[in-house]
Amino acid sequence: MRDFSQDHRWLSINTATVRKQQGAEVPLATIIDQCAERGIRAISPWRDQVAAAGLDATARQLRAHGMELSGYCRGGFFPAADGAGLRAALDDNRRAIDEAKTLNAACLVLVVGALPGALGGTPLYTDITRARSEVFDGIAASLEYARQVGMPLAIEPLHPMQAADRACINTLEHALDICDALDAQKTGALGVALDVYHVWWDPKLQAQIARAGKERLLAFHVCDWRLPTRDLLSDRGMMGDAVIELKKIRQWVEAAGFEGYAEVEIFSALDWWLRPGQETLDTCIARHRSVV
Amino acid sequence: MRDFSQDHRWLSINTATVRKQQGAEVPLATIIDQCAERGIRAISPWRDQVAAAGLDATARQLRAHGMELSGYCRGGFFPAADGAGLRAALDDNRRAIDEAKTLNAACLVLVVGALPGALGGTPLYTDITRARSEVFDGIAASLEYARQVGMPLAIEPLHPMQAADRACINTLEHALDICDALDAQKTGALGVALDVYHVWWDPKLQAQIARAGKERLLAFHVCDWRLPTRDLLSDRGMMGDAVIELKKIRQWVEAAGFEGYAEVEIFSALDWWLRPGQETLDTCIARHRSVV
Repeated sequence: MRDFSQDHRWLSINTATVRKQQGAEVPLATIIDQCAERGIRAISPWRDQVAAAGLDATARQLRAHGMELSGYCRGGFFPAADGAGLRAALDDNRRAIDEAKTLNAACLVLVVGALPGALGGTPLYTDITRARSEVFDGIAASLEYARQVGMPLAIEPLHPMQAADRACINTLEHALDICDALDAQKTGALGVALDVYHVWWDPKLQAQIARAGKERLLAFHVCDWRLPTRDLLSDRGMMGDAVIELKKIRQWVEAAGFEGYAEVEIFSALDWWLRPGQETLDTCIARHRSVV
Repeated sequence: MRDFSQDHRWLSINTATVRKQQGAEVPLATIIDQCAERGIRAISPWRDQVAAAGLDATARQLRAHGMELSGYCRGGFFPAADGAGLRAALDDNRRAIDEAKTLNAACLVLVVGALPGALGGTPLYTDITRARSEVFDGIAASLEYARQVGMPLAIEPLHPMQAADRACINTLEHALDICDALDAQKTGALGVALDVYHVWWDPKLQAQIARAGKERLLAFHVCDWRLPTRDLLSDRGMMGDAVIELKKIRQWVEAAGFEGYAEVEIFSALDWWLRPGQETLDTCIARHRSVV
């Protein structure tokens, strides 16, 4: 396993972690500068942040800092109420792929979606099997374009508590079944984004990570699972503050061949988003060295 | 599949559903009377409620009403910081088995526990593999006594969002692996309590229910998954108000041979626990007929 204790060359910051600082939204350009000042070599930004900052301006700023993208957030949300909705989702994913390519991202992360409308509180249907079928078809269609462009797609299995509204792929095993069906040759065009927050509880995690192997492990996200967890979306903990066995999971991931960044992704409306971004970033660096 | 639309003979009420009425704790004896008045033939009470009401008094009241127990809540919480804690947990489970026997329960439901101390916010260790090993040993030891007494043990896989603090068995597959290891002959001494709230999201649910079969399906719990879910423990929905495909899952369970009660278990600090118990029970009856 790589030694992270001496530096933070393998630290990446998902920009959601510091998108709010002291309670206020912060522009992506500021976040990039804050990361660059600290010698952080990679980030993973969100589409809405990039849109606000401008795609080309963001690409220039990243090049100027020599900064990489460990991933781009996000494509997905494939299920829809009708054919027009399904087509619109595919179009939107095509644009996301293009943006990821412009930014030279390592992969486009897919939060695949679930029951359409559920995120707004009113699901248009409740048949999760149908949603999974639409997700499968959506990934298949997007993959065709992503292969042409040369942008790997990374399916992110989300925690089962988000199965109704955000992603109906909820285990690494399920994600890998889809990868095997759509990319049997393990070309690297399709894989997974493994976020410890979503999968740490899974008794099959070690075996499925080994099954994934280097070709399928396209991204690795870290944070921690707080006790108690006060919100299903935005109460993630800082690495080392709670119960996830980070080093153990990283060991499994690296034993499978993963050599990329450990990307910090912390949604924390009640804690870290209220603090100065400098404090959050400095803590990420310290914890990356000590507990990741 | 059985026709539930004409009556509610297969409805059971987990007493947690009405343990608070209009915000106030209600004695078990009152709940039993409220259920009996409505022709509800079965309940599943909690140990603390039974202790407060008196074990023998509760047994007498149930007999007087000809009321059955679809289960008894609950044993489990096996992991502990040290040997003394592990032994204390086994002793406590032995008492729970005896109580279940006195009340002639169909099974003792096991919420198996997870990282010891986590429920109080301070886990004494974070090694979930160790917790799972202690759970396995605890079930094995308790099963030996339960077999002598003749009280079936029902492992309840809990939702993965409760993996750290309440139960580190989080899928039906995992629960059945343990059943197969400890009761390969499917004697009926060990099985599962299947609560739709915990397992509805699982892409392997149908297959694992078929695997479980009649011998392993000892209890079936219903409620619904609210959008949004505002609390990880106590924000369950009334059947039919949200996204769980209740009839589909009951069909799978009955196809596997289950013929017991559909037990309503709703923890709802923000809604149903604030209403009159009569309203909650009448709604359970109506929804049992229409959507379960």
